Amino acid sequence: MINPDRFLSDLHQLRQFGASGVGKGVVRPAYCEADMAARRWLADRMAEAGLSPQFDAMGNLFGLRDGAGLLLGSHTDTQPEGGWLDGALGVIAALEVARSNPGVSVVSFQDEEGRFGALTGSSVFSGAVDQAQADQFVAKDGMSLGTARAVVPRGECWNQREFSAYIELHIEQGPVLDASDQQIGVVTDIVGSRQLEITFSGQQNHAGTTPMHVRRDAFQGLSAFNAALNDRFRNVVTPDTVWTIGHVTLSPNAASIVPGRVSFSVQWRDAQEDRLARMEQIVRDTAAEIAAGAGLGISIEGLRHLKPVAMDLTLRRALEEAAQTVSPGRWRLMPSGALHDASNVARLMPVAMLFVPSIGGISHDFAEDTAEADLVAGVEVLARAAARLTREPQLQSTSPRKI
Amino acid sequence: MINPDRFLSDLHQLRQFGASGVGKGVVRPAYCEADMAARRWLADRMAEAGLSPQFDAMGNLFGLRDGAGLLLGSHTDTQPEGGWLDGALGVIAALEVARSNPGVSVVSFQDEEGRFGALTGSSVFSGAVDQAQADQFVAKDGMSLGTARAVVPRGECWNQREFSAYIELHIEQGPVLDASDQQIGVVTDIVGSRQLEITFSGQQNHAGTTPMHVRRDAFQGLSAFNAALNDRFRNVVTPDTVWTIGHVTLSPNAASIVPGRVSFSVQWRDAQEDRLARMEQIVRDTAAEIAAGAGLGISIEGLRHLKPVAMDLTLRRALEEAAQTVSPGRWRLMPSGALHDASNVARLMPVAMLFVPSIGGISHDFAEDTAEADLVAGVEVLARAAARLTREPQLQSTSPRKI
Repeated sequence: MINPDRFLSDLHQLRQFGASGVGKGVVRPAYCEADMAARRWLADRMAEAGLSPQFDAMGNLFGLRDGAGLLLGSHTDTQPEGGWLDGALGVIAALEVARSNPGVSVVSFQDEEGRFGALTGSSVFSGAVDQAQADQFVAKDGMSLGTARAVVPRGECWNQREFSAYIELHIEQGPVLDASDQQIGVVTDIVGSRQLEITFSGQQNHAGTTPMHVRRDAFQGLSAFNAALNDRFRNVVTPDTVWTIGHVTLSPNAASIVPGRVSFSVQWRDAQEDRLARMEQIVRDTAAEIAAGAGLGISIEGLRHLKPVAMDLTLRRALEEAAQTVSPGRWRLMPSGALHDASNVARLMPVAMLFVPSIGGISHDFAEDTAEADLVAGVEVLARAAARLTREPQLQSTSPRKI
Repeated sequence: MINPDRFLSDLHQLRQFGASGVGKGVVRPAYCEADMAARRWLADRMAEAGLSPQFDAMGNLFGLRDGAGLLLGSHTDTQPEGGWLDGALGVIAALEVARSNPGVSVVSFQDEEGRFGALTGSSVFSGAVDQAQADQFVAKDGMSLGTARAVVPRGECWNQREFSAYIELHIEQGPVLDASDQQIGVVTDIVGSRQLEITFSGQQNHAGTTPMHVRRDAFQGLSAFNAALNDRFRNVVTPDTVWTIGHVTLSPNAASIVPGRVSFSVQWRDAQEDRLARMEQIVRDTAAEIAAGAGLGISIEGLRHLKPVAMDLTLRRALEEAAQTVSPGRWRLMPSGALHDASNVARLMPVAMLFVPSIGGISHDFAEDTAEADLVAGVEVLARAAARLTREPQLQSTSPRKI
């Protein structure tokens, strides 16, 4: 069904749009010239494959076909300094599968990498954010999404509920498959995440004249909090749970001044909503206890909360069976620690995902890469699963209609 | 000998130059208009007191008198947001003492607060830094010291070795005297300090896709280092020893990214050089062990090293006896945790210092203040000690001569 050379050649051609940096780096953020040129190129490839290319108002590019209700795809925009596979793989694989499977439509979502937020194109597609709201989103360079999307050639809207299921092939962007020498990860859940911004307020003081026993040092509060949190999480978490203190702002942040204030993020991710909630309670309790013990003021703000998304079991079984056929014994079930467009699409229809390895776990970096054999295994698993699923009557669809 | 009303009135008048903010705040950084106006005002007060006012090339202002070899003073520049007593107290007290003691000369050093570095005026006076080198120092606003000091009315140089001793009265800038309800601190040593800039380099990674057990998280390295350091210092330090992690820069400093790098300062202060050295070894060993254990790269750079300065025993005894007379049972011996101009002047002659309380330990802040009774006690101790010392023949001097 699959032509590996054609598939790899397409991937390399797509990389030429925004090719940059050492290795296989790409610079193709949403709506930039390279991104739009890549989408026009992709629209031509869709047309060649017998699909009808259609941009929606956001610039999400669909390759549609009458009766093709199984939507495959991902995104073709990249990070400001990105790799050649993140997103691109899922789109080119979808195109290759659609060439031989008339039940398949293709999508490249816009701005998955979040020049204007996070997963912006699929957020609007899924109705999580409406277009007018999204148009107010502003990039770091000061441009609004409303202004940026003026470059979209023609913007239509249609009834996205005509699609019956969505499958996204993606690179893992983590080290798990690479480290265990496996080719395919069938995703069980896209993990949920919660994030809080905590501030400890102590007393800014002269670092020479303030004895240790009278200090209320905000950095010492953070360090004690971190140690206590690591300790208390141990009997709650699984090996798939992760947590991170990634952002720290110390004030006044000078070597000779006892820090009066620290603000920091705590983020944690897990596939189980109840575990996320238990961890939140531990974060809040631990921060409050540390602050009280150290004489620090505390504020806990800005809860960001994304629920886990379980993959559809019917779709997942099809991926599992295909993985076992293509890569016997070299695939595994795993959660997705990263968000993907599938998280949004799950608001509308059943979704599933599969991963291929990221060499060294590296992504969002010019050095991102995957072995060719693994790329081909990924598209073959996707094609087999799609073949099976498009034989099932509930995955038939009429053509998506304009609304 | 002392006229408390005149002394307090002078202090309040000096505060008018750059008076700002709530409370008794002052904004009078080195060489700014308010600073130079304050120095011209001070020069007039010196002349009224029978002293010969002389600016040197740096803008240090001396009030000189034939045969007056005991130099008293401090500085009249302030922090960008400073209090009314930091420096000013020691200068106005010196002026008040000089009015009735013909053996006393007065100085207000320039840029003690370090618009151009640290203790810049007394550094040049003492020969620690030469003028040509200092002229290259650049303030945060981009101005060089060489340019800034063009506002000094006339710049002479003279043989500073004509002075035979230096005593500096200063606010404590810490909470020790205030918390123990004492009026006078006779300084034993200006503590030394050492400071290192340490960088841990781990692996920047996606905070969702990177399992905990494969992370090399630079922030976790810092937290572990801090905990281990606090633990290992316990059997080395005294209650007067202090140490601070005051500056932390995390990279890339984003909530969703495992920190790949952290740079931070470690600074420690103590009156004993051998303790400073033992602590440095502990800092270096602990950082290396933590880095090795966590798979982090490490660099340790930029040692800053200031040796402790012991106060002269003859001068100190005179201050102790005067303190016991003026504030019986309400004075103590203590180290100075902050640097002062006396640290530099000690390169040239015997020095000593005395402190009065800072309310709440607050300094470098508009809220800085000291009870009037304590201010007056401070100048009385200074006057009594000066009276005794200027009776001693080795403190006689010829006039400082131009060189």
